Amino acid sequence: MIIHPPYLLFLGDAADELAAKTAHGIADWRPEWCVGQFRLPGCRADLHLPDLTPAEAAAKGARTMIVGVANAGGVLPEHWTREIVAAIEAGFDIASGLHTRLSSRPAIAEAAARHGRALLDIRHSTEHFSTGKGVKRPGLRLLTVGTDCSVGKKYTALTLEKAMRARGMDADFRATGQTGVFISGRGAAIDAVGADFISGAVEWIAPAAAENHWDLVEGQGSLFHPSFAGVSLGLLHGAQPDAFVVCHEPTRRTMRGVAHELPSIAEVIALTIRCGRLTNPAIRPFGIAVNTQHLGEDEARRLLETTARELELPATDPVRFGVEAIVDRLAEAFPASVGK
Amino acid sequence: MIIHPPYLLFLGDAADELAAKTAHGIADWRPEWCVGQFRLPGCRADLHLPDLTPAEAAAKGARTMIVGVANAGGVLPEHWTREIVAAIEAGFDIASGLHTRLSSRPAIAEAAARHGRALLDIRHSTEHFSTGKGVKRPGLRLLTVGTDCSVGKKYTALTLEKAMRARGMDADFRATGQTGVFISGRGAAIDAVGADFISGAVEWIAPAAAENHWDLVEGQGSLFHPSFAGVSLGLLHGAQPDAFVVCHEPTRRTMRGVAHELPSIAEVIALTIRCGRLTNPAIRPFGIAVNTQHLGEDEARRLLETTARELELPATDPVRFGVEAIVDRLAEAFPASVGK
Repeated sequence: MIIHPPYLLFLGDAADELAAKTAHGIADWRPEWCVGQFRLPGCRADLHLPDLTPAEAAAKGARTMIVGVANAGGVLPEHWTREIVAAIEAGFDIASGLHTRLSSRPAIAEAAARHGRALLDIRHSTEHFSTGKGVKRPGLRLLTVGTDCSVGKKYTALTLEKAMRARGMDADFRATGQTGVFISGRGAAIDAVGADFISGAVEWIAPAAAENHWDLVEGQGSLFHPSFAGVSLGLLHGAQPDAFVVCHEPTRRTMRGVAHELPSIAEVIALTIRCGRLTNPAIRPFGIAVNTQHLGEDEARRLLETTARELELPATDPVRFGVEAIVDRLAEAFPASVGK
Repeated sequence: MIIHPPYLLFLGDAADELAAKTAHGIADWRPEWCVGQFRLPGCRADLHLPDLTPAEAAAKGARTMIVGVANAGGVLPEHWTREIVAAIEAGFDIASGLHTRLSSRPAIAEAAARHGRALLDIRHSTEHFSTGKGVKRPGLRLLTVGTDCSVGKKYTALTLEKAMRARGMDADFRATGQTGVFISGRGAAIDAVGADFISGAVEWIAPAAAENHWDLVEGQGSLFHPSFAGVSLGLLHGAQPDAFVVCHEPTRRTMRGVAHELPSIAEVIALTIRCGRLTNPAIRPFGIAVNTQHLGEDEARRLLETTARELELPATDPVRFGVEAIVDRLAEAFPASVGK
């Protein structure tokens, strides 16, 4: 799925900032792609971007309107149809992360056909993937894994992209989730892929590349999550990572949506290596990314020091302290991937 | 997906017996459900069932016509449309394992709507699954796992069902693949389920049951298969098996469709226990099912003896020697599940 920037971010009448989480992610990570926001009366979210109508945004060069707002059940509200049709008429492709397919609304489908615009439903992959082949392909890959869902895997991969590029390394974030696809303009939401094609989809998302190029693959779920471990394992075999970083939220007691306790970071490292060796015998950990937002700064520093010492790996909070320590370790192990 | 027997098995103009593999599986395992076969001129497959037209089969009580034949690409040949429409007009539901959706052919869709008949596309699940919850549910479960794809996981589960029922045990085969769904009249083809819903689908396939009831869950793939390990892991967490049986084909050198060597049976046991403990701490192996079709009888016996001794588990070829040794072990460990 390829999405063409620049974007106009449609917020509709989002109930709060949380409902606009996807749009916030895009505006945070790709401000240069975001021409403006388009809000309806009653909208309670604000990206602090210029408020533009589709016609105004089109005049400023925007090509795709992103429906970057979530509703209960992922349903497209009826009263958004008119606005989306108007955007199509103003020349926009439409990309949506809702469950409702854009094309399931006849008015939207007809407008897109009439004006030759694309309707991109991120949750409904149209790409026909092959099954994974498990063959090592050129290029370096790093995968972010986790002790749970929603512990910062996307954020860590994006922070690494920024830091590695600043270091002169040739590094690209590779999206496997909805927000990530909007942020990178490419990728596939793994949760929209058929069970047999998880690894194959990731082989497509992070394809063969130059020998010293880094793909920073966004992980999903956890090998220890009872609902999603299969997704995480398929992703691991598709990514065939040379390096991985474990993401963790230290104050969480049970895994998201279930009653299971979180595994230890050490357990995640051990099982990731054990399984990951199947498709890349050289797999190894390069750092720990801890989300310390619920800890005071001193407490956070102490926890990171203990974690680093116990696991003999750089441990950091990417938000608070950046990821330089992890990039140092990568640069040391893969010197040829560092720009001169 | 619920399919109502009795069945009429449609073979079309199948090129050979292999193309009718699914139909053969149904006829072998559910002869009491198979009223007849319906063949077109040029058909080179034969199930040794009465040749019946849809009208004749309907008169004998058949309710569903199964399109149990594979074509290159899983495409429904144009010239079958007329026969399928005729079957609908004769009162049949139609169930198909092809990739082409039955309803994508307007003539078929219209006939089904006009006559109020069901179109069941096994490869396109219409069930809306939840994500897996990982909560232990009542009932006993056994999962067949493998060192590779296509090593006898379905066959072993079905043989166990037969042997356990003969022993007075309350046991049901639970299908996770296309042929299995036709054989049990229920289930879901896991390869048609979205990546996030593998475990949840298996929780639906093998739901809460009486305390001493056995679900014999058909496994898929292998935890060591680079293409499908994610499916196998999701299936493991959805099944939460108390018992598992490892299926193996000793003459195979590389895993199906890839260049990877097969893992050892011991490796499969170790990783199945390590991962399976997450959702059922009591998981343990109860036997090895070896497909010895490419070995002479003496050689097969020697291999099974060595395997049994080394792994301290019953080892058998279900086709050649039955599964009584495995059922003995189950009956001993779960005496309350054996009928009086």
